[in-house]
Parts: sequence; C-alpha cells; structure tokens
Amino acid sequence: MNAHQRIQRALEAAVARGESPAAPPRLGRAIRHAVFPGGARIRPQLCIAVSMACGEDDASLTDSAAAAIELLHCASLIHDDLPCFDDAATRRGVPTVHVAFGERLAVLAGDALIVAAFETLAAGAARSPCRLAALVGTIASGVGRPFGIAAGQAWECEPRCELAEYHRAKTGALFAAATMAGAQAAGADATPWRALGESLGDAYQAADDIRDVVADPEVLGKPVGRDVALDRPSIARSYGLHEAIRQFDRLVADASAAIPECPGAPYLRALVKSEATRLVPASWCTDMDRIAA
Amino acid sequence: MNAHQRIQRALEAAVARGESPAAPPRLGRAIRHAVFPGGARIRPQLCIAVSMACGEDDASLTDSAAAAIELLHCASLIHDDLPCFDDAATRRGVPTVHVAFGERLAVLAGDALIVAAFETLAAGAARSPCRLAALVGTIASGVGRPFGIAAGQAWECEPRCELAEYHRAKTGALFAAATMAGAQAAGADATPWRALGESLGDAYQAADDIRDVVADPEVLGKPVGRDVALDRPSIARSYGLHEAIRQFDRLVADASAAIPECPGAPYLRALVKSEATRLVPASWCTDMDRIAA
Repeated sequence: MNAHQRIQRALEAAVARGESPAAPPRLGRAIRHAVFPGGARIRPQLCIAVSMACGEDDASLTDSAAAAIELLHCASLIHDDLPCFDDAATRRGVPTVHVAFGERLAVLAGDALIVAAFETLAAGAARSPCRLAALVGTIASGVGRPFGIAAGQAWECEPRCELAEYHRAKTGALFAAATMAGAQAAGADATPWRALGESLGDAYQAADDIRDVVADPEVLGKPVGRDVALDRPSIARSYGLHEAIRQFDRLVADASAAIPECPGAPYLRALVKSEATRLVPASWCTDMDRIAA
Repeated sequence: MNAHQRIQRALEAAVARGESPAAPPRLGRAIRHAVFPGGARIRPQLCIAVSMACGEDDASLTDSAAAAIELLHCASLIHDDLPCFDDAATRRGVPTVHVAFGERLAVLAGDALIVAAFETLAAGAARSPCRLAALVGTIASGVGRPFGIAAGQAWECEPRCELAEYHRAKTGALFAAATMAGAQAAGADATPWRALGESLGDAYQAADDIRDVVADPEVLGKPVGRDVALDRPSIARSYGLHEAIRQFDRLVADASAAIPECPGAPYLRALVKSEATRLVPASWCTDMDRIAA
C-alpha cells in the first residue's frame, strides 16, 4: 500500500468513526464534502515519509497522526473560507462548505474535524501509548496558539503584522508539525525534522502567494486575486512576482538541504522536488521571462 | 485548595500556555474574555468530584481533564453565540466574544480553545501516560460526532429533530464526559459514572429551557426568550412550563440516584442539590403557582 492509499484509508476510518444513522445527516455530508476527494495531501504524505525515514515501527500510529494533520488542515480551510474571512465560493473546484451547506454547518464541520483529529490520534496510539502525549503537543502546536494556524489567521485581525511570522504560523507551523509528528510516531527525536517542515511550509506559502497572482482559477479550483481583494499580506504583493519566485526556489533548496541524512533521504528529496514542480510549474517562470522581455 | 481554586489554577495555566509576546494580542484577549471570570464551572467541578470519589491519585491529570472540559464548554459558547447561530449580544453579563472582538476572532478563539483543550489534557498526562488515550476519547465524544456538542448544534440545521436526542448531544454528552473523565483520570472504570452525567446534563438542559422563559435577563447575564425567537426546540415550549419544572425535578432526583455508592457519594449528592437550587430557585415554582391560582 503506497502513502496515498494509507492516507485515504486512515481518513476514511477517521470520518466513519463520527458517523451513525442516529447522527444529524447534513453535518456528516458537510464533513465528507470537506475531506473527500481532497487536495494533494502533502502534509500527511510528509508525515508518513518522515516516519518511514525514521524506521517506522507502528504504522497505525503514523497513519493516525497523518490523518489527524490532514483533518486539521481541512478544518482550517472550511473556517478560512467563511464569509467573515475569505468569503470564498469555491475550493478544489467545488462549492465551499458554507456555500453548499450554510454557514452554521461550516462552523460546526470545522469544529467537529478539530475534535476528530485528536480523537483519531488517540485511537491510533493503542500499541504505543507513551508516544501519544508528545504527538498531541506537536500537532496542537501546529494549529493552535501561540504560533499555529489559529494564531496565523488571527494576524489578519491585527492592525499590522510581520509577513514572515504571519506565514510561519498560518502555513509553516502545520508543515513543521507534520515532519516532527512523523518522527515522533516512529519513536524518534522530532528536533532534527523541524527545519524541513518549516522551509517547506515557507515554500508552500510563497507558492500560494504566487499562484494567487498567476494561476488559472480553473486549474487552481479556487478564485485568484484574493490577496489584493482582501488586502492580505503576500510575498508577491510585497516584493513582486519575480522576487517571489526566486524566494520560492531558495526555500525549496533550503527544504531539500534540511533533510537529515538517513536511508529515506533520497525519497524525501524526490518528494520535495515533485511538490515544487506541482506548485510552481517551470512554464510560469518562462512565461514571466517572456512578459519581461 | 478547594475544587474551584484547582479549576481556576488549571484554566490559568492552560490559557497561559498559549500566550507569548510574539503572538497576535487580540486573539489572546478574546480567549481570556471567553474563559474568565467564567460561569459556574459545573462540568469541571463534577470531573474533580468524581475523580476524588474514585480515589484520585494524580491530581494534575484530573485538573487537566477538568480544564480541558471547561475550555471546550467555553469554545462551544463562543461559536453558539455567533451571528449565524444565536446571534447573542451578551453572555454572563458582558458582550459576547464576537461583539467585543469581531466575528473572525470569535471563530478563531473557539478553534484555538478546542485545540488548547486537548493540548492541556496531554500536558497533564506526564505521570499517567497510559490513561491519556481513553481520556481523549471520552472528552472528544462529549463535543464531537456522532453524539457530542457539534452534533447537537447540527440538529438545529436539520428540518426536524428528536428533542431528547438534540438535548442529549448538545448538553448531556459533555456532562457525561465530565463524570466519566473524572473516573478515568483516577484510573477507574468510567462506565458506572455515565448515568450521573447524562441525568445531570438532561436536568441542566431542562433548567436552561425554563430559565429562557422565566429568568430575569439581568440575573441570567444573557438575553431570554431566545428559544421562541430562534424557533429552537425546547422542553418548556413543547410541554409547558409546569411540566418542564416537573421534568427538571425528576431529572435531578435521577442524577442523585445515579451516584454510585462510594465514600464521595454524600459530597456529590450535595453538589447536585446545590446546583439544582442555583439553576431553578424554589421561588420560581412558588411564583408559578401564584400565577396559576
């Protein structure tokens, strides 16, 4: 079973755990809409890849950590799309949860997914109970306070914010949690894996800012031009597109360099490279050179 | 240190864990606004009382479980008060979080409190790591799906719902989680403690419905008459006030009777009795008899 299949199976189990014929059916549908078919699943892929690189010995714990991280990512997207934040009508090419199911179910689906994430993690720790507390702490720090996703989003509610801190919290923290949780799920020290997650998170955020400017909304599956429309801080807005792409390339190189030497390093370097190509296709740089010429 | 002091100290530690001079300050203020000074703290009191009745041997785990439950309760109130749900302007006599800090910070404060709850629980499990997974499961079931608070709220988004199921999920589930988590924090079997929490949760919901009809908004600290205004299912609306008070009295008696025989039973019975008096003062029944006469 490859990583993608492991992730889908773990997510299916996590979502099914919350289902019952006696439960309110529309909440269940809203949650499936948010979690499936899903996006690139890059955070759980990273988690699994690092666990394997660290000599994975409890696959069900790794899969639970990976699923928990993806559920939290899905929750953050639902709330981020709400009318009071981005007011986005589409996500991954389909209506956002609040458009499809209403604002109330969007708030509740996000809440329920955050709860389900920690429930899933705990349910997967039966064979390695002593690893659970550290995993909960690591994953919580990626989404909570003071430097996780909720804090990142909250910077949008401040009169001013530091771009790097905003991005580190809004995106980097959960990437760092994904690599560190991968190590902890394998019983290894998380510290050497933080830098990979952080660099990759920064690269991902830079890519997001670039895509908001140059991508085709049909390809992206969500509206573009939102950073300007919502007056959100953005690398592309602050430094221009050329500089944003240079930053992206440098961050991808940093991420590759941050992979600790281990048997799994070549696979991880290949994963970073293929993600980079997916996020910012080389053709965009060529297009830009053509425009600049 | 009495239970109230233990709860305040544990909540202070839980909230402080999320704070940093480098974190977005308004989110921090919104969270303190939601958690302090707080209400009756009945759920964490129950959790501590049951743990002591079960021979508490790890007070920091009990306190963490109690704080986690209260943080989740606070999170549910913030989201419940949002414009898309109850659109409440006041709570506990002060402006609701979205009125004081805006809707975006209210969504984020709720999210961050859910995360903080599980983080707090994990941080308190250092001495008893093998109890953590069961505690996470129990507490998650009180707030998530299929039968916790998120599911209870989601029944409000369905064309029809069963009153008992709606209340069991919206209120009873977290009360049951509080008594069961108290037992688990002490290393005891949770099963005998479920009925106490469920009956007390039902009683509490009946009281809430009654208070929505008869209480003075100044005393209650929040608007009254909301069930009719929002067309929400309510025992008082469905069966009338007299029958609602009869149901309340019966549920309180059920709760008292559900307390397993143990050295802590007298204290728990006294706690149930004093809560019942606080929730529905005897004078209300006298007033009603006067109106009926």
